[in-house]
Amino acid sequence: MTPKELAQKVLEGHIPSLAKAITLLESRKKGLRDDALAVLDELTPYSGKSIRLGISGAPGVGKSTLIEALGLALIEKNFKVAVLAIDPSSPLSGGSILGDRIRMEKLANHPSAFIRPSPSQGTLGGTSRHTSEALIACEACGFDFVIIETVGIGQSEVLASSLVDVFLYLHLPGSGDDIQGIKRGILELADIVAITKADGSNLSCANIAKAQLEQSLHLSKPEKTPQVLLTSAMTHMGILELIDHILDLVEYCKKDGSFTKKRTEQRSQWFRQEVLFMLEDLLKNGNGFSPQLSELAHQVQLGAITPVHAARNFIATLMPQKKHRN
Amino acid sequence: MTPKELAQKVLEGHIPSLAKAITLLESRKKGLRDDALAVLDELTPYSGKSIRLGISGAPGVGKSTLIEALGLALIEKNFKVAVLAIDPSSPLSGGSILGDRIRMEKLANHPSAFIRPSPSQGTLGGTSRHTSEALIACEACGFDFVIIETVGIGQSEVLASSLVDVFLYLHLPGSGDDIQGIKRGILELADIVAITKADGSNLSCANIAKAQLEQSLHLSKPEKTPQVLLTSAMTHMGILELIDHILDLVEYCKKDGSFTKKRTEQRSQWFRQEVLFMLEDLLKNGNGFSPQLSELAHQVQLGAITPVHAARNFIATLMPQKKHRN
Repeated sequence: MTPKELAQKVLEGHIPSLAKAITLLESRKKGLRDDALAVLDELTPYSGKSIRLGISGAPGVGKSTLIEALGLALIEKNFKVAVLAIDPSSPLSGGSILGDRIRMEKLANHPSAFIRPSPSQGTLGGTSRHTSEALIACEACGFDFVIIETVGIGQSEVLASSLVDVFLYLHLPGSGDDIQGIKRGILELADIVAITKADGSNLSCANIAKAQLEQSLHLSKPEKTPQVLLTSAMTHMGILELIDHILDLVEYCKKDGSFTKKRTEQRSQWFRQEVLFMLEDLLKNGNGFSPQLSELAHQVQLGAITPVHAARNFIATLMPQKKHRN
Repeated sequence: MTPKELAQKVLEGHIPSLAKAITLLESRKKGLRDDALAVLDELTPYSGKSIRLGISGAPGVGKSTLIEALGLALIEKNFKVAVLAIDPSSPLSGGSILGDRIRMEKLANHPSAFIRPSPSQGTLGGTSRHTSEALIACEACGFDFVIIETVGIGQSEVLASSLVDVFLYLHLPGSGDDIQGIKRGILELADIVAITKADGSNLSCANIAKAQLEQSLHLSKPEKTPQVLLTSAMTHMGILELIDHILDLVEYCKKDGSFTKKRTEQRSQWFRQEVLFMLEDLLKNGNGFSPQLSELAHQVQLGAITPVHAARNFIATLMPQKKHRN
């Protein structure tokens, strides 16, 4: 199948072709990159129309369960839902969030849903290098909601928040994700906070946590204080309210112009990141660049020049017009 | 104080000056970078002699307690111990592992110890940008052991493992760090695994975990299988054994040449990362580079070109000699 034919199938909403296209986009094989970009070029004009939703929460918070409940509720409202998972957990083996398709069995098997883990790649944030591209593909395939799922541990949330329109943080009171300040940093990124498992004997505890979170969020983000919702995937409490809230927020941001502004800034950021990813690859390959790079790398190996000075010198070779001082 | 004077104080083993030097190295203020590098240049020739030890483990595993016990035991053996913490948890506020100095009170107050959290910087692994430099400073100040502490959640371990000679992973059976495959990726990086809190009623559980870990590590790393040790900061079991094991491992690697080889490769990696960090800064500043960059960034904002194509075009301007295909 040519790239054009594959893209055509994706545009027709053919989910197996979408999966195939994403595999192509994620491929590290050199020869395939041109094909991948050809597919991406075909799909890009038809992208951009979904609501991009980031969902994060510490392990054990009930992320899969909530995403399944939310996804099925969205499908009932006639939305098509794709879930892309960013997983920073296995840096060497390139493993990905295991068992998402198993844990979200109902959602995974629904014809209006698509679930896809994204393998980690490289050390410098490569995790999400191709998530931007997979997002485009999902949109072109007709998905109205694209959920980017992350593990809730810092770095990957920053990346995810640079891809989405709305960032939802899941919190389970007493689950230990508040130790070490991990939560705090991610809360700064949140547009909405959902307290999970707010049912049965957890309910009173969830209510207290809600009040506390509201207070601290009001202090830390006085202007755009995220709303805190109680949810339960078991009793379905708060799920429809959560959907309404997401839709309202998107509507509001479209009206005040911040939606478009954010997407434009995200496109610029994608550009900058892609430049860095390409350069990272080139640097790893060593001779991809210039004789100066090889020589500097050699000097660094010998210990004849410090890595920082070598880096400065190399940057200077890229910009012959003027002296650079970092 | 001039950079040279500050460096001199560091070389004399003056710890407040070390703290000051690291603050200077971490500074984001443009004007200070030249001073920082001047200090680094003075210190570099006196660096390299410590044992660089990475320690990682999930929150709750008893990391601080073990580092304190290990640190104090090392000091009793006449080693000077520095602890640098990499913390990816608060990406926006730049916060750092809270309360390390409080949790490791005895170690923190010991004249032969130095504890320093490293704030997060930037999204693309900037977390550890200056940890390499702080490490050099600690070594020049006369510390024999430099411990790089990370939170145990993936990305930061990869960075830490690119800085150290020996990577120690802490594991607490049943603490939940084995869910979601988080542990697996980090275990791949481990040179030694220590099971923590192996005391009292935990002991039998710890023994079972040890056997299981040994088996799975033997399968996944048949050639360089990491040793698994039982430790308890409370009863001090395994702490001296752990030190012996670290020293033996370093000795072994020095003999077979892998120690020097690893350090050389780490220096090369530092060079490449520093190039990327500098480029990241330049790209963020927009016009730091060239009119071509500004024009491409503008086209990306307008949506007239995709971020990936723009990145390809920009990379091509850096390498006019030949066409590049990524």
